[in-house]
Amino acid sequence: MEKIRKILLSERQMPRQWYNIVADMPNKPLPPLNPATRQPIGPEALTAVFPMELIKQEVSAERYIDIPDEVLDLYRLYRPSPLYRAVSLEKALGTKSKIYYKYEGGNYSGSHKANTAIAQAYYNKKEGVRRITTETGAGQWGSAMSFACNHFGLELLVFMVKVSYDQKPGRKLMMNVYNAKVIPSPSTMTAAGRKILEQDPDSPGSLGIAISEAMEIAVEDPYTKYSLGSVLNHVILHQTIIGQEALLQMEKAGDYPDVVIGCFGGGSNFSGIAFPFLREFFQNGKKIRLLTVEPSSCPKLTRGKFMYDFGDSAGMTPLLPMYTLGHNFIPEKIHAGGLRYHGAGVLVSQLLKDGFIEAKAKMQRECFEGGILFARTEGILPAPESTYAIAGALDEARKADLEGVSRTILFNLSGHGHLDISAYEKYFENNLPDHELTVTEVEEAISKITF
Amino acid sequence: MEKIRKILLSERQMPRQWYNIVADMPNKPLPPLNPATRQPIGPEALTAVFPMELIKQEVSAERYIDIPDEVLDLYRLYRPSPLYRAVSLEKALGTKSKIYYKYEGGNYSGSHKANTAIAQAYYNKKEGVRRITTETGAGQWGSAMSFACNHFGLELLVFMVKVSYDQKPGRKLMMNVYNAKVIPSPSTMTAAGRKILEQDPDSPGSLGIAISEAMEIAVEDPYTKYSLGSVLNHVILHQTIIGQEALLQMEKAGDYPDVVIGCFGGGSNFSGIAFPFLREFFQNGKKIRLLTVEPSSCPKLTRGKFMYDFGDSAGMTPLLPMYTLGHNFIPEKIHAGGLRYHGAGVLVSQLLKDGFIEAKAKMQRECFEGGILFARTEGILPAPESTYAIAGALDEARKADLEGVSRTILFNLSGHGHLDISAYEKYFENNLPDHELTVTEVEEAISKITF
Repeated sequence: MEKIRKILLSERQMPRQWYNIVADMPNKPLPPLNPATRQPIGPEALTAVFPMELIKQEVSAERYIDIPDEVLDLYRLYRPSPLYRAVSLEKALGTKSKIYYKYEGGNYSGSHKANTAIAQAYYNKKEGVRRITTETGAGQWGSAMSFACNHFGLELLVFMVKVSYDQKPGRKLMMNVYNAKVIPSPSTMTAAGRKILEQDPDSPGSLGIAISEAMEIAVEDPYTKYSLGSVLNHVILHQTIIGQEALLQMEKAGDYPDVVIGCFGGGSNFSGIAFPFLREFFQNGKKIRLLTVEPSSCPKLTRGKFMYDFGDSAGMTPLLPMYTLGHNFIPEKIHAGGLRYHGAGVLVSQLLKDGFIEAKAKMQRECFEGGILFARTEGILPAPESTYAIAGALDEARKADLEGVSRTILFNLSGHGHLDISAYEKYFENNLPDHELTVTEVEEAISKITF
Repeated sequence: MEKIRKILLSERQMPRQWYNIVADMPNKPLPPLNPATRQPIGPEALTAVFPMELIKQEVSAERYIDIPDEVLDLYRLYRPSPLYRAVSLEKALGTKSKIYYKYEGGNYSGSHKANTAIAQAYYNKKEGVRRITTETGAGQWGSAMSFACNHFGLELLVFMVKVSYDQKPGRKLMMNVYNAKVIPSPSTMTAAGRKILEQDPDSPGSLGIAISEAMEIAVEDPYTKYSLGSVLNHVILHQTIIGQEALLQMEKAGDYPDVVIGCFGGGSNFSGIAFPFLREFFQNGKKIRLLTVEPSSCPKLTRGKFMYDFGDSAGMTPLLPMYTLGHNFIPEKIHAGGLRYHGAGVLVSQLLKDGFIEAKAKMQRECFEGGILFARTEGILPAPESTYAIAGALDEARKADLEGVSRTILFNLSGHGHLDISAYEKYFENNLPDHELTVTEVEEAISKITF
């Protein structure tokens, strides 16, 4: 009999709660600090930026949080998402291992970002917000938020990192289809943007800069709030639906992963798939390896420093305890725009520090090679970001074969690459520069941090 | 309780046979003719172009044909495809009707074309073919065939209609990812292409021209065969898996359509969803309306003539009995490149003539408007081709509301528009010219036909 390729769940099997890892962490995350006083900030410090319900989730230690019906209803547009057994990829590799992937690119936004976009738009609308500002790197987050805001009747203003704005005009157009306004960042619309442009008129931008711009607009207007697509605890909370579904699907497949892999930008797609498996370890002692894969040119987890730093370039956020390359660091213009972020989410940072997570860094060229092998075998053209997870999975399969063992590998295919196809053109033109950020360069970047 | 949005089938529920409508047609299709003798041609006349198994399917009158295991296995990468209830679209329209859509864009190629690409590549490989040539309009067919050929170890040469090649660089790159070679058509590589370029060096190309070029290369080499993405009986046969799944899914939903709608280029996506419902009428007397929607600028079904004509521009194919605008007709450069074909498949032509199918023509601007409404409500960005089916469904819902009745409407969402996003840009720029081909223009086009 042929091997089953897809493990599906019905809408009725979709989880109805998000899982909050904070409840099970042996060392709780350190608190965010007020940069001026260096004292822990309370939830009230965030009210200019976020609606109250999201602030509550940000600081919650409850293990489970109910997903509102309105959010579940929109999730049903595309969830549960399929889990695939990579039958053709395994065959091409000749590996003894089993490779599974959870595909989060099958929804309207083309990535996992829809899971938190829908939730964030819903809570904002419920609290009377009229407009949302946000940043986007490669554009998946902006697309996700555009549809969600339009659905709930909210205006959306997106600051899109300039290098991605130029590389990926399709993403901007997609946001326009969903009724959003898109501005290349750094822009002259904000003080934060103007300051960067004064220093470097050709700045390619970065997620850190775009965040500063979006926050600046939000705090100026009581009816405008800001929304972030990764990093924060509430964002990661919303993504845990991925891993909860994957647990049910692996059970349906009669299997359990030895290792769970995700690419790493701010932490949300990795945490989304990984944390429910970590819960199984914390609660039931089920062994698991969790592996993040980040770009060698933006290696905060493998070469960054665990310290308090700002989440944005201009220093508008509270100070967060995280692995960072310094909030002024501007990463190389790699095509995985969603991974071009200087820091890592607080939850992942603490868990990495405590040894529950492994991190590795990869060069973009090797990742694209893996992405093309994946496309030619499994069909789906992966987002540049997702190729890092694929490359990580290929490494694990090859390593297992060298050791003469069969492992069960699960990775998160966080998005498709239809709107990032120009990156593949660069690959074929042999025009994908690779830069490995050295320890010295990281130290230099961190020494530049000013508070 | 919330309405269910998706009706899914498991891999085990996937149909294992294709359905051949010829077995149930009251008037069988007229035979293809040899252009020189005007006598019916036999299967042997096609052996230079197609492998024997596909020729057998082309002329078969068997009701069911088994799907080979190797084809079923690749179908499982993405089939069964989901059937959606368009809950959000219905709400936005305020309609009393129920709207369902079968989504064929969720696979690697982004359209229904994968269903026949996999089958055609398989049969060619089985009969020792080494290289395949084909044409592509918007690029969905070329992408579908690229992956399938690469999977089965076949080379692929794609002649891509020049206007689409220029409008949609992403599609060319996607084919490159899947290892295919792509040539803009008309090209200097063939006599057919050179002849067109002599007459008009700036020719935008057409599917008819690209077919001539691909066939010319195929007939010159015994190890090269040609492959067509629509129109022919065997292509339509392979697409019937769509409608067979939809029948099972409608049953699961406890519903049955009053009308089934598809956009119309050569006939394959429409026939694929519609013919199994027509089988239910022929065999069990279940009432159904079948509606095709074609561009007003390429209206072969609504304004063309039923006659014998060539399937390609250069006159390399047999003469086929079909609705046509004349094989030399070059349609307007609309963005629905897949609908820019002068003729209609023989099966659909006969069934339209016999009154089993309805046809209507729409302007591209109105279709894009429908496509944007669809994207903003249901999330999925439709291919320009698929917006014609959407526009048809919107018409039906509004008509039912005017009549004060509730109908059940089913349409085929044949593909996504991620790689056609520049067309949406043109829409927002108010730069989508609309041309309605008049009866006089059609008569003029047909009078130019030479044999």
